[in-house]
Amino acid sequence: MLTPSSIADCWHSLRQQRPLVHVVPNLVTANDLANALLAVGAAPIMAIEPAEFSQLPNRALVLSMGTPTIDRMQLLAQAGRAAQAKNLPIVLDPVGVGATVWRKQAALALIATVQPTILRLNLGEALALLDQTGVAHGVDVGHAWHDPRLVAGQLARRYGCVVGLTGVIDVVSDGMNWIQLEHGHQWLSQITGAGCIVTSLIGALAAVINDVMLATVSAIAGFGMAAEVAAMHALGPASFRVALFDQLGAIAELIDNSRLSYRMEQHDAD
Amino acid sequence: MLTPSSIADCWHSLRQQRPLVHVVPNLVTANDLANALLAVGAAPIMAIEPAEFSQLPNRALVLSMGTPTIDRMQLLAQAGRAAQAKNLPIVLDPVGVGATVWRKQAALALIATVQPTILRLNLGEALALLDQTGVAHGVDVGHAWHDPRLVAGQLARRYGCVVGLTGVIDVVSDGMNWIQLEHGHQWLSQITGAGCIVTSLIGALAAVINDVMLATVSAIAGFGMAAEVAAMHALGPASFRVALFDQLGAIAELIDNSRLSYRMEQHDAD
Amino acid sequence: MLTPSSIADCWHSLRQQRPLVHVVPNLVTANDLANALLAVGAAPIMAIEPAEFSQLPNRALVLSMGTPTIDRMQLLAQAGRAAQAKNLPIVLDPVGVGATVWRKQAALALIATVQPTILRLNLGEALALLDQTGVAHGVDVGHAWHDPRLVAGQLARRYGCVVGLTGVIDVVSDGMNWIQLEHGHQWLSQITGAGCIVTSLIGALAAVINDVMLATVSAIAGFGMAAEVAAMHALGPASFRVALFDQLGAIAELIDNSRLSYRMEQHDAD
Repeated sequence: MLTPSSIADCWHSLRQQRPLVHVVPNLVTANDLANALLAVGAAPIMAIEPAEFSQLPNRALVLSMGTPTIDRMQLLAQAGRAAQAKNLPIVLDPVGVGATVWRKQAALALIATVQPTILRLNLGEALALLDQTGVAHGVDVGHAWHDPRLVAGQLARRYGCVVGLTGVIDVVSDGMNWIQLEHGHQWLSQITGAGCIVTSLIGALAAVINDVMLATVSAIAGFGMAAEVAAMHALGPASFRVALFDQLGAIAELIDNSRLSYRMEQHDAD
Repeated sequence: MLTPSSIADCWHSLRQQRPLVHVVPNLVTANDLANALLAVGAAPIMAIEPAEFSQLPNRALVLSMGTPTIDRMQLLAQAGRAAQAKNLPIVLDPVGVGATVWRKQAALALIATVQPTILRLNLGEALALLDQTGVAHGVDVGHAWHDPRLVAGQLARRYGCVVGLTGVIDVVSDGMNWIQLEHGHQWLSQITGAGCIVTSLIGALAAVINDVMLATVSAIAGFGMAAEVAAMHALGPASFRVALFDQLGAIAELIDNSRLSYRMEQHDAD
Repeated sequence: MLTPSSIADCWHSLRQQRPLVHVVPNLVTANDLANALLAVGAAPIMAIEPAEFSQLPNRALVLSMGTPTIDRMQLLAQAGRAAQAKNLPIVLDPVGVGATVWRKQAALALIATVQPTILRLNLGEALALLDQTGVAHGVDVGHAWHDPRLVAGQLARRYGCVVGLTGVIDVVSDGMNWIQLEHGHQWLSQITGAGCIVTSLIGALAAVINDVMLATVSAIAGFGMAAEVAAMHALGPASFRVALFDQLGAIAELIDNSRLSYRMEQHDAD
């Protein structure tokens, strides 16, 4: 059941179990994801050689589509198949999927192959995967006229997975229920990798919690609350980033001691 | 015309227009360039798959030659040709071009193919491209006995582009006129990526301003002034780097409120 | 001879000579190593094109096995052979060698080819190379029941090199003598790249000091002392990382002014 204490429990379990999380990183945020996973108590391994994928004793897989190439898409698919064979949760981040037609087609092929457990994306990326927009503006976008709750629900039903849709408002949906979270800070949109980091945290929690909705909500809520505290210690986006990583190790305590704000409802039939 | 207010206007325009800037990054500074471009209000996209180059709706191209390989040089050339076809400004950073004979020959071939709008480099790299030195000392060098104004002018005429030559003294030249800037801080030479970041900022401003000299001067001046303010908040090169990224979002206001220091003259016939 | 003043002298020599250090980086820590080497006064060059390896005027080679692939292992071997031909010190970091059987076999083949001057690793990696453990837990491990002094000595004799074994206790051994150091901070285990950074600092000092034991001890001692000072200025692992890089430029002065703590003995016959 989704309560503040069940969310805090996820974060405590993560530190106790220290699961090995296999990340196939992109060129831009590899360092950030390694530091984020270490900070929250997971054991990251950045492995990009298919020969060792089946040998890794990992408990979750995190796939970032950033800086895609034809070869990298193949690599992501191979990592996904190895995780399927181990019956592991797979979190996919379709970074900038709306930027080009090529990228979108590559993402759709990857989703079909990998069948991710969780998709973590922003509104522009979600709309691209729903064919509701043309070409997005780089890798980060905002579209105020779409209701993120509807978008998340449609996406979850279309691709048969849990969706973590992050932005000014965060929504998690499994296609039937949605949970809306209202934590975070505007500086998250002024640093690279914020989305990828949430994606990796979802992977870390999904490694220790069977309830995929709970793992996704816990990751997004905890990250957003860490961002709020970090912003109080920062002068701009770069000092915010440092403070954010400092806070990542204390998320369980943050949730214990703070007011977690969320709404939880069922999707209307649509 | 080049005045403090025209320089500040460049930075204001950048934030208003939020241009998509295509960066072909190197392995070392990809994260830095993404964060720098986000901080100043541009929309970076790190794309390295030739299949999507022509599809990107970018307004400028930034090419970093760092960590070159035969394959990467080919990729940089392909990105350059895609930008030429779109008639976009291209900024090239020939990182460490003096380090080896191989690297220099690769850079010369790339320049011939890409015909960059702007070359951003340091004095050692400039001398290598003018055949005036043997092998440089790594990727960063200083040669006190050369006049950077003459070097920048020669380079601009040789390669038919605007040159942004950065170091203790910064010089921008189009081969006929030069502008000398005296902002910055010594810690810039103790962090990696400072040169690449300026290169990316030139690309961002060239995306919104047709006057290439003005865009280049504005980027170098703004970055140097941000560095001066950042140094006042720092204890060493790493905290300086954090403070520098914090300041990047406020460059327009910095220029509005500070004393911009530069000299502007014509090159003597030489 | 190994004394606090001989260790401080190493760091002073490094700043005076500013040696070019060739690093073959991994995808995760390339930026960190460049910044660390610049901070201590070395001149890093991240080169990954075999065509330029023999042309580089470097004085040491640093090989990081992180994010290994079949192609990258080949590249590391080529860089190693180029350094052998120049008779340079080679420092190898077998990152996460215990993570998979594939990685371990790849590391053993690389060691046989490159014959490193120095191996820098943690206890889990050391045990994997001694066939004393199965599969490690990611790239960072702790095994309290092994004596790191014995492990370092065995490894040094097995592979005919100096071993820098870092962890809660650091041990340097050439197979006959060992030196135990007790500096550092627990936050080093919560940031990525701490091990790689030490590896790169060993390379920088080995470039200017012929005594390989002294260079290795100096790097590990200096880094550990910088970490202790940094921790006093930090609120968590990320601000610790910033403070650590700030301190790297002042290691010589730190050693001059602090109490360096180490033990030095001969290995018993075993």
